[in-house]
Amino acid sequence: MKPTIFHLELSLAEARTAIAERIAPLEQECIPLTEALARVCAAFVFAARPSPSCDQSARDGFALATQPLFADQAVAAFHISGEIAAGCTEQKRLAPGQAFRIMTGAAIPTGTARVVPFEVCQEKDGKVLVPLAELARKQLHIRRQGCEVQTGQLLAAARTRLLPDHLLLLAENGCEEIVVHRQPRVAVICTGTELTQAGEPLLPGCKISGNGALLAALLQTQHCTCICCLTVEDNAERITALIEQIIDRDQPDLLISTGGMGPGTFDLTEQVFARLGGVSVYNRLRVRPGRSTLFGLLDKVPFFGLPGPPPAVRLLFHELVAPAIVRLHGEEHSGGMLKKAILDGPALLSQADCTVLKGAVARVDEEGRLRVRLADRLEPLNAILHLNGEEGELVSVRLIGPLA
Amino acid sequence: MKPTIFHLELSLAEARTAIAERIAPLEQECIPLTEALARVCAAFVFAARPSPSCDQSARDGFALATQPLFADQAVAAFHISGEIAAGCTEQKRLAPGQAFRIMTGAAIPTGTARVVPFEVCQEKDGKVLVPLAELARKQLHIRRQGCEVQTGQLLAAARTRLLPDHLLLLAENGCEEIVVHRQPRVAVICTGTELTQAGEPLLPGCKISGNGALLAALLQTQHCTCICCLTVEDNAERITALIEQIIDRDQPDLLISTGGMGPGTFDLTEQVFARLGGVSVYNRLRVRPGRSTLFGLLDKVPFFGLPGPPPAVRLLFHELVAPAIVRLHGEEHSGGMLKKAILDGPALLSQADCTVLKGAVARVDEEGRLRVRLADRLEPLNAILHLNGEEGELVSVRLIGPLA
Repeated sequence: MKPTIFHLELSLAEARTAIAERIAPLEQECIPLTEALARVCAAFVFAARPSPSCDQSARDGFALATQPLFADQAVAAFHISGEIAAGCTEQKRLAPGQAFRIMTGAAIPTGTARVVPFEVCQEKDGKVLVPLAELARKQLHIRRQGCEVQTGQLLAAARTRLLPDHLLLLAENGCEEIVVHRQPRVAVICTGTELTQAGEPLLPGCKISGNGALLAALLQTQHCTCICCLTVEDNAERITALIEQIIDRDQPDLLISTGGMGPGTFDLTEQVFARLGGVSVYNRLRVRPGRSTLFGLLDKVPFFGLPGPPPAVRLLFHELVAPAIVRLHGEEHSGGMLKKAILDGPALLSQADCTVLKGAVARVDEEGRLRVRLADRLEPLNAILHLNGEEGELVSVRLIGPLA
Repeated sequence: MKPTIFHLELSLAEARTAIAERIAPLEQECIPLTEALARVCAAFVFAARPSPSCDQSARDGFALATQPLFADQAVAAFHISGEIAAGCTEQKRLAPGQAFRIMTGAAIPTGTARVVPFEVCQEKDGKVLVPLAELARKQLHIRRQGCEVQTGQLLAAARTRLLPDHLLLLAENGCEEIVVHRQPRVAVICTGTELTQAGEPLLPGCKISGNGALLAALLQTQHCTCICCLTVEDNAERITALIEQIIDRDQPDLLISTGGMGPGTFDLTEQVFARLGGVSVYNRLRVRPGRSTLFGLLDKVPFFGLPGPPPAVRLLFHELVAPAIVRLHGEEHSGGMLKKAILDGPALLSQADCTVLKGAVARVDEEGRLRVRLADRLEPLNAILHLNGEEGELVSVRLIGPLA
């Protein structure tokens, strides 16, 4: 029996909210810091030690005692009593009248008043002569213990994606492991009797499936593991069996299907979803392309039923699937807020009751303004234009790649 | 004998040009398309077949013959003679007066005048009744063979980085393998007697090395393989031996060192570089930070001698090393051109004879203008501010990450 399907229609913004409400961050795991790039912190990490770990010289120069050996009206003289290289682990001590040659990053000896760079000093007969003016400067050329990071300071907040800058801070603070959220494992099913696998002969009326390659690549850019990417014909029993098998065997954190989302006889995704006990959150959107698209939970597994045409798959992935993945990753800020940009080219038709999405290319002009134009048909996108029926000079765009 | 070192001073722009001139794309290799994301095409790839592969229905509806069975003043009637699902490999034929039910993506039967969507048709007694107005519409709901991609059309240009959008096009066209440039293999050496490895006890006067973690992560974001990341004390013999060993054993495509670039006694990088027969392209830049930094060729291997402080390493990586990596990858456009942005916050001091680089955070404001502010000390950067001594309201920035 074909299950009855009710229409649950949402706007794009409502859909994004509804998805976010139903997806929780994946469980935590502890991994080596060396593998943590682009993973999402599951806990607040605070500094275990100060940085620098002790008072250090900020220059190659002389560490001078508070009192010179002698001084005239122009210069003060100090006896050069030794040298401290960076990495010297012995805590040295300056007696009055003494100076040590000291290198950038080396620990300041006890009794140091200031460091004076080599280039303003003069060496003579085992002494260093320093102009008096240098001894009056405010700049001591000493980096104080903890001036960069103090013990207990926040190094990485929970629910933050770890960037190279975070890894630097964490590594310098002695962090070797970090607790992050697990990476999402995503399964992809491309439905369509017309789909031919790459390498198989292309029969008349058929097409080579590109959605699998597209989604696998998009998932990779979102730091997911694509656990499988299967093609299946428009046959409700086969699609049902395939989904059951994937859920049982692979336990995906997210399932994405393409195709089979129209009102036609062979559009089976909703039917299969309902038959499997799936609970729809929406099955219609006030969005073009994407009017017929489904999101729901299938035995707790989030499920996106995307349309078949790859241009729609691409746009809806960025608008709906990517923020869901961000939530699974545990990231707090999904980023990708809509921005305002100047539209280059003629005004575009939009619909009052619906968001029209268009693939676009954004750039910053010579005056520092964000500008956007429609992408050519085969051109890679870096932005998605949102037409909402209320356009002035500025349009709304979502940036999805580096600016041209 | 300590080799004599001459000063070769360049501006930042000159340095970028000089580096690009000395680096050639790595050799080519053929890889599966499924592994090609973010790799750089080594040849122009042209379409081997059209897409769609035949004339297709653009809607679920009826394919109508040129002549109806009969017509009155309001509707034309056609005999429903069958159904064509997407993926049907038999080339059907419409006789005059006939219609086929047809699904989106299915091959158009011979003799079809147009497709009319189900929702504007009425079925009655094995016939479909179509309003005459529908038969006069310009829109035929037929996607012609090759309307998306024609045989011979360019799908991916040589020296282009492959994005998900390219992989979609290539997969749909039946491409299973692609010729790309090899990925760069990069070796990192962090010099400094004060450097302690993570996990070792931190002695007074020492610091835990963070440059290795920073550079490994930055290299990962640039799609390089970091083949080794070693720490060595300030000892010319040891540094020399280590570099020789890495070049002989690992054959890196690029070598990066940190530290040892000042004028001090323990600043050995230039000395070692010269001793190993390295040919300098520059060893000074009119850039702060980064005055003392080296680029040259060591037995044909490009070598960057970066300073020790991680904030300088980070900025100079983005400004100098990343474009070199882009060249090794074979990419034509390095992207990352300087953009203009409005500076938020007080005007910044800059120097007339030198570019001052500052870590920054860029965003797009509500009017679509790019704005930039200095980053807080522990904040991840998404932009680098360039101060060139000639600032008006707009400053120059290089974007290095997604906009806030």
